[in-house]
Amino acid sequence: MPSFVSATRALKRRLGTVVDTSESGCWAASFDSSKISFLPEAVITPRKEADVGVVLELANKHRVPVTVRGRGTTLMGSAAPIAGGWVIDMLRLNRIKIDTEAGMAHVQAGAKNGDVQRAAEKAGWFYPPDPSSKEYCTIGGNIACNAGGMHGGKYGVTRDFVIAVRGFLPTGEFVEWGTATKKFAAGFNLRDLWIGSEGMLGVVTGAVLKLLPAPAARWTLLTAFADEAKAIAAARALFRLRVQPAICEFLDRESVICAERATGRAVFAGQPNRAVILLELTGAISEVKEVSKVVLGWAKEHALAHRAARTRDEAEQLWQVRRKCSGAMFELGDTKLNEDIVIPMRAYGKFMRFLAGLKKSSRLAIPTFGHLADGNLHVNIMFHRGDADESRRAEAAVAKLMQTVVSLGGAISGEHGIGLAKTPFLRIQHPPAQVGAMQAIKQALDPNGILNPGKMFEVYEVWKQPKLAIHLPWDHK
Amino acid sequence: MPSFVSATRALKRRLGTVVDTSESGCWAASFDSSKISFLPEAVITPRKEADVGVVLELANKHRVPVTVRGRGTTLMGSAAPIAGGWVIDMLRLNRIKIDTEAGMAHVQAGAKNGDVQRAAEKAGWFYPPDPSSKEYCTIGGNIACNAGGMHGGKYGVTRDFVIAVRGFLPTGEFVEWGTATKKFAAGFNLRDLWIGSEGMLGVVTGAVLKLLPAPAARWTLLTAFADEAKAIAAARALFRLRVQPAICEFLDRESVICAERATGRAVFAGQPNRAVILLELTGAISEVKEVSKVVLGWAKEHALAHRAARTRDEAEQLWQVRRKCSGAMFELGDTKLNEDIVIPMRAYGKFMRFLAGLKKSSRLAIPTFGHLADGNLHVNIMFHRGDADESRRAEAAVAKLMQTVVSLGGAISGEHGIGLAKTPFLRIQHPPAQVGAMQAIKQALDPNGILNPGKMFEVYEVWKQPKLAIHLPWDHK
Repeated sequence: MPSFVSATRALKRRLGTVVDTSESGCWAASFDSSKISFLPEAVITPRKEADVGVVLELANKHRVPVTVRGRGTTLMGSAAPIAGGWVIDMLRLNRIKIDTEAGMAHVQAGAKNGDVQRAAEKAGWFYPPDPSSKEYCTIGGNIACNAGGMHGGKYGVTRDFVIAVRGFLPTGEFVEWGTATKKFAAGFNLRDLWIGSEGMLGVVTGAVLKLLPAPAARWTLLTAFADEAKAIAAARALFRLRVQPAICEFLDRESVICAERATGRAVFAGQPNRAVILLELTGAISEVKEVSKVVLGWAKEHALAHRAARTRDEAEQLWQVRRKCSGAMFELGDTKLNEDIVIPMRAYGKFMRFLAGLKKSSRLAIPTFGHLADGNLHVNIMFHRGDADESRRAEAAVAKLMQTVVSLGGAISGEHGIGLAKTPFLRIQHPPAQVGAMQAIKQALDPNGILNPGKMFEVYEVWKQPKLAIHLPWDHK
Repeated sequence: MPSFVSATRALKRRLGTVVDTSESGCWAASFDSSKISFLPEAVITPRKEADVGVVLELANKHRVPVTVRGRGTTLMGSAAPIAGGWVIDMLRLNRIKIDTEAGMAHVQAGAKNGDVQRAAEKAGWFYPPDPSSKEYCTIGGNIACNAGGMHGGKYGVTRDFVIAVRGFLPTGEFVEWGTATKKFAAGFNLRDLWIGSEGMLGVVTGAVLKLLPAPAARWTLLTAFADEAKAIAAARALFRLRVQPAICEFLDRESVICAERATGRAVFAGQPNRAVILLELTGAISEVKEVSKVVLGWAKEHALAHRAARTRDEAEQLWQVRRKCSGAMFELGDTKLNEDIVIPMRAYGKFMRFLAGLKKSSRLAIPTFGHLADGNLHVNIMFHRGDADESRRAEAAVAKLMQTVVSLGGAISGEHGIGLAKTPFLRIQHPPAQVGAMQAIKQALDPNGILNPGKMFEVYEVWKQPKLAIHLPWDHK
């Protein structure tokens, strides 16, 4: 790795104490939630957005790799400074301002998703994107990977709520993509090109987010099914009724058993070891009343059993199940390949049959849960890192999974992005013409390749790398 | 203009009769709704999507300019083949297939917006983007300019409903951006870069569109106000109540007077010459009932008078008003500069005061109407082409308008795009760093500059050009 001592000295002269070259500071910025560590030479924690421009201007001049991080909750290695250089830590840029009349949030990139949600709620508005790390992850990180969450089917993902972004080109020049208005058709749309580009085309320092009127009513229902096939068929029947649940969360039996082992009781009382679907309806009070009747009729016809939450507390108890199962999976192996693939609805049946086969042929536990309203399933391939044979089988299983997902017309990632972890699979999704166009754009906007180098296009096999044995605040286990 | 005789001959050998070099065929493809004519050398009307790849491959090899058109309803000159060469006419590629379970429409680029709407409706679904030219314009054209319509405030614009696009790079290589799933986070997002890029980065031949469950109820209300300021203040009060109307269409007094002259009766019976707001609520039956009570309370407090439609026919009568005013404006001048600017809600008051001043200082009629829920106003600067002094004042007025819009934090176009007509204003919206990034992307994806040359970046003053004296089917007059 090349060293950038004189560039870092120049940066310190320009920005002073926001530049940290201490060993502890650099170590803390050396890894994200993928837990593979690469030491940078400096960590910059800007106090104002313009500082980011200064960092980039110097980095571009001296060809210093720059990796931007929020809280580092990504599992993909997208915020790991694999080429060293400088890390920009955005956590201090965390202002949030709600425009209650227009229904917009003006935020800085380091603002926490959960804080934006609460600020919106306080003003009678609603910010739907809700990654499960929402109490830690930042809006900047959400924009970088186009984060989703459980509300995606009805409400959409981060992209659907970003009205405008501002920030800096790799040259250090300030740019704004979009205006704080709901319509914009003036010039090429770099806003949406930046969203999901994982910090490789520019650095977002602030954004204007769209809010929705807060739904007056919520209604939660837990339903149990004999097996995965029955649950999936039932969900499809529900969608054919044109019911659009805010959340339609599926857990297969392996996931349910994990949660049951962790909590010591049945997920659905009296119906242990069942595949379950957890539903949430949102809307006007009268609307939710109207639609919940339809859903209850559907549950009677399709589910083995169902239970509606009568209070917010009861609903919260039902949601606990979903949250518990992720951590409990580590009873099945010390390592998890959490693959957030997406499957078109018409292929649900085929995919569930493939998955049952994969569990058998790989002899691995692959608990799977996810968002049925948008096809975004989390397939968790569990194995023990120390067991070479299990590791090989996990590696083969993930490759087979990705091939199948694409052959069914799906996506290899729905909300995590590529980072380092999915680089071996990018070309399964994208043929050469598509990868070529992406690389041409990268070259055009960042000709010196300073922004988040090593990601997306260069194949990197994370499962072969040593991982830090640390516990992060948002770790399930 | 260079000639491409041998390239056209080669194209004919490859594609046969879909290549038309007749004088009448070329003339018909020489202009769009901006009515400025530039003769191409051939018009290609592909029978299958792969034909488009063949055209581009040859065009790229021989450096032939290629302009793609749907029905040519754009007012911006975006489909005018200003550099000659070849025109691809997409109208034959018009397949529509509804996936009723997933709530998606699989369409080809030449499918008509109105046909997609009806196909969706027949299957119990709803495709909201509704440009006023919907009975003529195509989905491909809608994607090219990110078309909007009256439903934008609640539902969004074309971009919000495009799940995936497929088509060809300027090299003729086939690409697909996005999958037929509601989530996708794998690689750079060229889907949204293509949307709104006005055919300059690639050619869309097909798309997957998102549909929404058809709303069970609609409710229409016409409200009258003493003047524009009162109407605008009332609309803001409505939004502060967190009411999200599907449509919130504003007409200033000049627009209303146009409609009244055209129809010979008051827009609001008993309240002639008032600014009006036309509202539509959509949703579940119970929801619309609930919210309509809130809106009636608001109307009693803020409006001079209000009238709800009791039947679909009555609602249709109210909508006639909105449609009539556009055509009637030609009583005020033979030429219209229809500027679809966007204003942030917080700047509505300031903008209306500016507009009143502009009407006075320019001594021109500038009837204005538009979509208050998203700030997208249509400012119609009317003048007589033959009158040099009026023309000069119109030109000065449009420049002043654009400067003001940007200084208020707005956008110079909300749904029409740049094309030729707005090229003099692009750099008011975008400083050099932003234009530079756009041009770098253009250069990266289309290094030979064959796709829709002359648009967006090169300044062209449409008002100085001779216009065809023809009547198009969708012309209001």
